Amino acid sequence: MTEVFDAVDVIRAKRDRQSLSAGQIHWVVDAYTRGVVADEQMSALAMAILLNGMDRDEISRWTAAMIASGERMDFSRLSRPTSDKHSTGGVGDKITLPLAPLVAACGVAVPQLSGRGLGHTGGTLDKLESVPGWCASLSNEEMMRQLEEVGAVICAAGDGLAPADKRLYALRDVTGTVEAIPLIASSIMSKKIAEGTGALVLDVKVGSGAFMKDTESARELARTMVGLGQDAGLTTVALLTNMQTPLGLTAGNALEVRESVEVLAGGGPPDVVELTVTLAREMLAAAGRDDVDPADALRDGRAMDVWRAMIRAQGGDPDADLPVTSRRAYSRLSAGARPT
Amino acid sequence: MTEVFDAVDVIRAKRDRQSLSAGQIHWVVDAYTRGVVADEQMSALAMAILLNGMDRDEISRWTAAMIASGERMDFSRLSRPTSDKHSTGGVGDKITLPLAPLVAACGVAVPQLSGRGLGHTGGTLDKLESVPGWCASLSNEEMMRQLEEVGAVICAAGDGLAPADKRLYALRDVTGTVEAIPLIASSIMSKKIAEGTGALVLDVKVGSGAFMKDTESARELARTMVGLGQDAGLTTVALLTNMQTPLGLTAGNALEVRESVEVLAGGGPPDVVELTVTLAREMLAAAGRDDVDPADALRDGRAMDVWRAMIRAQGGDPDADLPVTSRRAYSRLSAGARPT
Repeated sequence: MTEVFDAVDVIRAKRDRQSLSAGQIHWVVDAYTRGVVADEQMSALAMAILLNGMDRDEISRWTAAMIASGERMDFSRLSRPTSDKHSTGGVGDKITLPLAPLVAACGVAVPQLSGRGLGHTGGTLDKLESVPGWCASLSNEEMMRQLEEVGAVICAAGDGLAPADKRLYALRDVTGTVEAIPLIASSIMSKKIAEGTGALVLDVKVGSGAFMKDTESARELARTMVGLGQDAGLTTVALLTNMQTPLGLTAGNALEVRESVEVLAGGGPPDVVELTVTLAREMLAAAGRDDVDPADALRDGRAMDVWRAMIRAQGGDPDADLPVTSRRAYSRLSAGARPT
Repeated sequence: MTEVFDAVDVIRAKRDRQSLSAGQIHWVVDAYTRGVVADEQMSALAMAILLNGMDRDEISRWTAAMIASGERMDFSRLSRPTSDKHSTGGVGDKITLPLAPLVAACGVAVPQLSGRGLGHTGGTLDKLESVPGWCASLSNEEMMRQLEEVGAVICAAGDGLAPADKRLYALRDVTGTVEAIPLIASSIMSKKIAEGTGALVLDVKVGSGAFMKDTESARELARTMVGLGQDAGLTTVALLTNMQTPLGLTAGNALEVRESVEVLAGGGPPDVVELTVTLAREMLAAAGRDDVDPADALRDGRAMDVWRAMIRAQGGDPDADLPVTSRRAYSRLSAGARPT
């Protein structure tokens, strides 16, 4: 097969601060997915993007190319609207756990395709796997059924969704190119747009416990992602939330699940409760449901009911004891939590 | 084996414009040679070096690390002094061919370890291989004997010399990171210092037919390389020569050999003759022999005698017809020669 572009030409163009064309971007992402552009070429390009940036059009094209590398899901045949949220992550951030059942309890379905830990922050799936029996992998059909019946699903993104992103994400992790805002924004948004959610709330963390250490870069990331959502016709809202200190009282997979259950039981640390309710309101409003108050659903136990149904639907036992985290594992996590 | 550094930390340091320590540089070059640092990590680092630069100390450490990755040769037991030259290359640059026998004819041995073509410029070895029977590979013992008996050798650098450079050079070629001055300078100088020549003349080409398009970057490259030579105790001289138009009348392997033989026969294009004699004077002077005039050796046929002995010593037939270059191959080379 004859290739229409040459990888070295594309790398050189970005290296020399040129704007990449739609053709160049679609080719390089597609050719990387096909294995024609090698890892060492993509990492050189990623470093050039990190240091020289990409403009709004380039990021939009890059995101579209990542979406085009795989399948797209469609939730339009569900009986209720969908709303999803993405958090850029931070130490002790377990908000997704109480949030998804809370929003579902208010009549909006939540299709949470989550990820694993990146850097020193734990991933939502890693946390939920401390629930005995709980399984992170669902087929598209299982996911659809659970969304209709339970209203909330938290599971691993399938291999078919933005496969280019999956490979690029692993590459960035080992080549010092994670922190490029155009690549962070397109990675997050390509998966959320391909996932097919009807509305999206972005929780952009800022502070020493988050990836974005300062407000300026957090704001740039938020603005970039909202722009990408708009370009794709997706109602997108971003909140900048403080991550100067870890969220809640605990960091560590099982401990965070326990703390989340406390929130669903009407207790839990006030900062976690406040952020959960705030994000739930935004997710409901973005899906056109600003007539319900999630605080009620937390108080009267409806959110807890959805949580239990959600855990059970994925094979987990909501009543099982969570593994006791040893002192040693806990102090290791605490040490890892310190920004370096 | 426990590694003392982490590749991502080293990449991040350069990405964030920090100066790399001697420990970091020695580790990353050594670990790359051992395969512990992967190609995709080295290419990200190379791009960060290209865009953020390295200071004089870092380049000197990088060069020392490349030399330390392999063996060092020693010509001190030869009966005459040694002098070598390196040209940064340009279209139609065949100077090495008449120059090595010319300097040898004046009493200074020339150990020319040459390379293959890079980018759109042909390599000295590629050119000489158009001579029927001529072989580019010599063992260290064969090279030493030929230097003593003939006085000039042009051959391929063995695998033992700066192996880190060999791998890095191939990587840079496919990742758009060839043009980094710190990497060009350390690549050239690590091989010349490891080779063990007693003196070195650098012919830094500048102009549209060369890698360095402008005088400023050519001067920076020259200054960097002379500094590296001085740091290693090697008498090093650099000349900036114009490469705005191709050297001589021909470009193409066999055609360039023919033109070089014309120079050795006392004819040839005036620009090639002038540069050859100028570089020969510099190489002789750097080796302490400013009492001989290479123009005489060109006129009286001594240089041609050394050329014939040199070709014959490496299995070549100096009287054989050179292959006729087809019109098609020639026009492809011409097209490739245009700067883009």
